[in-house]
Order: sequence, then C-alpha cells, then structure tokens
Amino acid sequence: MRMVDVIRKKRDGQELTKDEIDFFIKGYVEGQIPDYQVSALLMAIFYKGMNDRETADLTFAIRDSGERLDFSNVNGIRVDKHSTGGVGDKTSLVVAPIVASLGVKVAKMSGRGLGHTGGTIDKLEAIPGFNTEIEEKKFIDIVNDIGICIVGQSKELAPADKKLYALRDVTSTVDSLPLIVSSIMGKKLAADDDCIVLDVKSGSGALCKTVEESKKLAKSMVDIGNRAGKAMRALITDMDRPLGNAIGNSLEVIEAVKTLKGEGPKDLEDLCVILATNMLSLAKVGTYDECKLKVKEAIANGSAFDTFVKMVEAQGGDSSFIKDVSKFSVAPYTKEVKADKEGFICQVDTEKYGMASVILGAGRNRKEDNIDYSAGIMLNKKTGDYVYPGDVIATLYTSNESSLAEANNMLLLSTKICKEPPIVRPLVLGIVQ
Amino acid sequence: MRMVDVIRKKRDGQELTKDEIDFFIKGYVEGQIPDYQVSALLMAIFYKGMNDRETADLTFAIRDSGERLDFSNVNGIRVDKHSTGGVGDKTSLVVAPIVASLGVKVAKMSGRGLGHTGGTIDKLEAIPGFNTEIEEKKFIDIVNDIGICIVGQSKELAPADKKLYALRDVTSTVDSLPLIVSSIMGKKLAADDDCIVLDVKSGSGALCKTVEESKKLAKSMVDIGNRAGKAMRALITDMDRPLGNAIGNSLEVIEAVKTLKGEGPKDLEDLCVILATNMLSLAKVGTYDECKLKVKEAIANGSAFDTFVKMVEAQGGDSSFIKDVSKFSVAPYTKEVKADKEGFICQVDTEKYGMASVILGAGRNRKEDNIDYSAGIMLNKKTGDYVYPGDVIATLYTSNESSLAEANNMLLLSTKICKEPPIVRPLVLGIVQ
Repeated sequence: MRMVDVIRKKRDGQELTKDEIDFFIKGYVEGQIPDYQVSALLMAIFYKGMNDRETADLTFAIRDSGERLDFSNVNGIRVDKHSTGGVGDKTSLVVAPIVASLGVKVAKMSGRGLGHTGGTIDKLEAIPGFNTEIEEKKFIDIVNDIGICIVGQSKELAPADKKLYALRDVTSTVDSLPLIVSSIMGKKLAADDDCIVLDVKSGSGALCKTVEESKKLAKSMVDIGNRAGKAMRALITDMDRPLGNAIGNSLEVIEAVKTLKGEGPKDLEDLCVILATNMLSLAKVGTYDECKLKVKEAIANGSAFDTFVKMVEAQGGDSSFIKDVSKFSVAPYTKEVKADKEGFICQVDTEKYGMASVILGAGRNRKEDNIDYSAGIMLNKKTGDYVYPGDVIATLYTSNESSLAEANNMLLLSTKICKEPPIVRPLVLGIVQ
Repeated sequence: MRMVDVIRKKRDGQELTKDEIDFFIKGYVEGQIPDYQVSALLMAIFYKGMNDRETADLTFAIRDSGERLDFSNVNGIRVDKHSTGGVGDKTSLVVAPIVASLGVKVAKMSGRGLGHTGGTIDKLEAIPGFNTEIEEKKFIDIVNDIGICIVGQSKELAPADKKLYALRDVTSTVDSLPLIVSSIMGKKLAADDDCIVLDVKSGSGALCKTVEESKKLAKSMVDIGNRAGKAMRALITDMDRPLGNAIGNSLEVIEAVKTLKGEGPKDLEDLCVILATNMLSLAKVGTYDECKLKVKEAIANGSAFDTFVKMVEAQGGDSSFIKDVSKFSVAPYTKEVKADKEGFICQVDTEKYGMASVILGAGRNRKEDNIDYSAGIMLNKKTGDYVYPGDVIATLYTSNESSLAEANNMLLLSTKICKEPPIVRPLVLGIVQ
C-alpha cells in the first residue's frame, strides 16, 4: 500500500477502506508517513468528506494509536460527560459530583483550556494543592472509594490525535466534520466508560455557530459512540451567551461550589440539573423524572457538595477553600465595565468574552502560556437585561493592570444594546440519541 | 502574512494576490515554509484551480525563484520549441538544426526522459562525446557561431519547480492545470527567448488524453507566454501513436539524422516541417508559405544536416557517427514482436509502448536510473497497417535479455487488431495563438 494512492483515492472522492485508514494512522504515528502527505490527505478529506463508516474507522484508528484505559476494576457503571467547549462552562465541576453522589461512577479525564474556551483541569488546579496527575491504579482506587476522580489526559492516549491536531492547525484543515469528530471521539473512546453524555455547544461562543452544524456534529459523535458499544446521548445547548456569571478559573470554581449548594445562577443550575439527569437516566438509574428528582435532592441535602469536598481532598486539594470560598485570593487589579447607552442587552459575541478573559490572563493563546488563576470576568448583566448608561455590565479581574483597557474595550464592542428586548432562546436546543 | 491564511483563502475558493503567491514560493524555496503547508495548498489548488492571473503570477514566481539566463549577447532573434512529451518524439533534433540553418538562433535547454516519455538530452548523449553541460559564455559563443546549441538544465534555474514537482509527485497533486502550466512555463521563461512554439501532445501517449484537455493546457501556456512578452504559438499534435518508427535513444538519433537528410518516416518528416515552419514564421522570417519552402530547401540542400553536424562537433561529439550512423553499436539482444492474428492495427496504447522501451533499458523509472542508449523499439507496422499472423510488428533491442519477454507481451497487449480499418486522425489537431 502506498500513501500517494490513498491520497489519490480520497482526492477523487472515493471511500477509503478500514485497511487504508489504519495504514495511514499507523504509518503517521510511527513516522513512516511524512507530514506533507498527511496534510494533502487532510485537505482532500476537507473537500470530499468521509461517510459514517470511514469516520468511525478513523476514530477507532486514532483511539488505538496509543494506550487505552482499563476501568474494568471500577465497581459499577461508568458515565462520562463531554462538552465541545464554551465560555463560562463549569458544568463538569457540578454534574460530576452530583452523579457520583448518586452511585454512578465518574472516572473522568478532562482537558485544559485553549483559545477562548476554558478547561476543567485548569479550573481544578485553581484549588491549592489539587493534583490532576494521578497514576492509573490510584485513580481507580479513588473512583471506587468516593465515586469520582478527575485527571488530565496522560501523554500516551491517542497520540495520533495530538499529531493530527497540530498539523490541521497550521494547514487550515481544522473545520472538517469527520476530522473534528474523530479527534474528539478518538480520545474519548480511549477511556473506558459505559455511557457518554455529549454537551454540544451552539452559538457565538462555540465551535458550531448554528444549531444545524451542532446537530450534524452531535449525530456523527453519537453514531460512532454507538458503533463502539457505548450508550450515547447528545444535548445541543445554547452558547450564544456565557454560561453563568463567572469566566475565569477560581471565579468559576467559586460559582460551581455555589451551584452545588443550590445558590448558583439560574441558567447554570438549570443546565447542570439537565445534564446530570441525562447522565443518570442514560446509566439506567431510573426514569428521567425519577433521576431529576434525585439530582435536585442531591443538591438540596448537601450530598453533591460533600462528594466534591471528598474529591478535592482525595486529589490533594485544600478543601478549606471549598468550604469557605472567600479564601480564594482576589486579583490585585479590577475594573468595572460600564454601559455607554440605555437599552436591552440584545446580543453578545461570546467568543470575544472568552478572548477578553484570555487577555486578562485566565487562558492561553499557546499551549506553553501560564495561567493567572484569579483572572477573569464576573458578569453583572446578561442578554435580555435592561441597562442605563453607567450601569456596571461586568467586573474585570487581573494581575496584569495593562490588560484592563483592551479587555474593557473588547467587552463593550462585543455587547450590543438595542431598544427592543431580544428573544432569549432556551438552554437546550435539541437532543440527539 | 501567514501561510495558514493563504491556504485557507485558496481552500475557500478565493483568488490569491501576487504578494501571497510570491510569499509562498519565496518562503518555500528559502525553507521558511514547510512541505506540509505547501502540500495542503497544492491540494486546495487541485480542487479550486487558479485563474489566468494567478497562474501567471505563480509561473513568474517560479521563474524568478532562481537565476535567469541572459541571451542579450546572442545576435539575432531567438526561438524555442517545447514539447509536452511523447513517445518517439525526436523532433527537437530535427527542427532545431533546420531553423538554425535558416538564420534564426536556437539557444535551447532541454530535459531528460522520465517515465514513458523520452528526453532530448538523453538522445544527444547517445552520440559519443556529446557534452550537454556547457557554461553560459561558451554556450552563447556556440549559438552566435553556428546558430544552435542544446544543453541540459543547469541546477540554478527555477529551483521552486524542482521542489514543487517532487512534492506533487508524492501527494497526488500532479494533475492540476495551473500546477502543470506553471511548472512547464516557469522553467521555460527562465530562459531568454523571443518566440516559443509549443507542441502540445494529445492522445494515449501524452499527458493530455483528449484534444479538449490539450487545448486548455495550450491556451493557458500561450496566455502566460504572452503576458511575459513572448511571441507564442501552440500546436496540438497527435500522440495516439508513436512518432516515427524509432523509440529509444541512439535509434531515435539515427532516425532524426535520416529525417534531416529527407529519408525519414513520413509522419515524422511532416511534423518536423510543420514545427520548423511555425518557428520561422513566428520569428517573422517570412509568410507561412515562404517559411515552409525554406524549410524544405534546408532539408533538400543539406544545410540542415550540416548545421546538426556542426552542433555535434561544437559540443564535443564524434560527428563520424552522424555521417555514418552504422557506427552506432547495436544492442546485443533483439526480439521480433509478431502479430498473433489478421487485421488492421486499429489502436495502440502509446504510453505502454513507451513503458516497454523503459523496460528494455531506454528510459528511467526513477531519476537515478542509468540509461542503455542502444535499447529501444523499431516499429515495422503502425496504426492503419494490415497484418497477418506472424508478421513482424516491431523489433526490440536491449542489453538485458531478461527484459525481452515482458516488453514483447506489453507491446502485444497494447496493440489492438480489428477487422475494419481505423480512421487515422491528422498529425495536427489544432492551433492556439
């Protein structure tokens, strides 16, 4: 088999066989197939696409390109939740403890933030002492013991994805459905869960800007998960506005803790309840309504919060910060972003909100960048709210005073104020299963 | 400017500016832009094409990627002829001396054979002592002195083309009109001619299998030559059958010498007269009919042959081989290919004829391969001829006895014999200017 023939076949719009896909991924990871042939194939895939079978085979080849996790020693059913990335999305910190407190195991691997979206691992590391690098045996012990453990991705999982992603990034081949799907699911399936709930974000702060795109992505991921024998469900959720009021790592931890106690912002609490209910019902804990009741109870009776505290302690974190969130240090420089005219906030560019928080130090432009855990944005006003000139829309937090002016301008420019009230769409825009 | 943005622009079907094209070629030649980005762009060009302006700018960027020749010290008008490559195409060896004998200068750079097509430089090197590597000053002295000199391409010309071609070859991006055109014309325009006649081959032995494709290619090349200020004309000529009867290096030299003396096969002589007439008339030596008369005279009175002898001598070759072609050594192993049924030869796969001669040792599969100058094929029967079982269709020549059986089979399989006589199409299928 020759790579040049595989490229030609896809170039001419033909279907690649499983053998051809395995040949290309194996050869690429092992260094026999050079970057310049792979980038030509990626561009051909960009134009000609892949059918469901090809996309599944590509996903499985990526999954199998490195080690796979073995959770067979975890007692009980394992459920995972994956978000395609948004702004202010701290749901994992809330739903994972809820679900674990109700007896379903969450052995979770999460990622770091890149670009305008945050990452669960960065948020957890804002808790002093919290360790996200735990070796497999201890990881499983913690899961068996308290029902939950959240770690970063170890280096050996799906190495093909790392190489492919780096190449796609510099060859304008990122925006291709089969390549996006195989990248997400290749990593996800290298873990060993029984059920996966996907939170596919849709809107100005998401990878997919339209509900249609989000549904396509969701369908393809659900299809592949099913082919791999997983119970799958995908929710399409709104990312035309940030989720909750906090953007930035320790600010989001504080908001998550409040939500676990039933004191969080309504949109965040609502979505967390929906996600957790879906995770439980997919794991066959009960009917949807039964599961929803259990979730609300777990928040009301404090068992979800207790589980979060136990997880922090089991992973080396200082739980006194969780019990008293005023212990988190506040960033030294702050600035209030003020409305410059009267009217309804009718539209925000959520991606720009995310970028403003990166400018303040809460995220990374490049993988090597350091994070300022206390940096970020607290929103006082959101889409649909009425404001007068001088009203505080948001407060900026940073350790780098010089970043305040740029972030302030970016937020103002990304916040549209209109005379008419906007129609605020529902949190959940669709379900795929 | 970032290469990733240039790729994205072409990927989305937009027109690249001259600056973007220059940036990409310069960066690639200088090593700042890696192969993997260039191959992604090439694949995008494969799908999205380039308009005339982009193709011209790409061509000029390739031309300007290295040194350019300066023929300003050549006295008189300079004319060149370029063939897109065929089987048995030895016209350069005939038309260049004809034209030079009539006072138009031929300062010619030619290529080597690769794959199923032969190359002028390989053919000339079949003449003992013939030197195709001559430094520029001496090259121009020879042109001024006897009107003609033919050399190989020096390493410094259009280095971008060398890098691009090698990359296209392994990434399935060869068959793209703007890439083909810019490759041919980028090299061609690095030389310094006033007029160029293009011989665009069409048919089973050519790059372009249909007249339509050939015309598209011809039009694009003529357009770019005109934009560069050259007088241009392109002939679309038949390559559904080999040209003349000889395929292979010394065999073709012998046939060219016979044609220069007016004793060659009719199809070859006819095409050489047409090409030489077009070169002269493009150089404004006279009307088309006047030029045709001059060409026929130059053959009849021996001046074209004399010019060839002078060129061989000026370039260090042993002209006694030209004066007495029986001095060329005959290959040690021969085999007659015999018809296995009765009928008209109605169709031949000319590319396979070329591949058979490569198998016998007359060409290269890879650039590093050595050539057996005496190897090749002499055709006794061609398309339209009537044969009986046992009639000799061709004779094979080689120094490698074991290659005879494969070449014999390949020739038989590529020669279709029918009951009805075929319609043999004319030598010249179109003119573009």
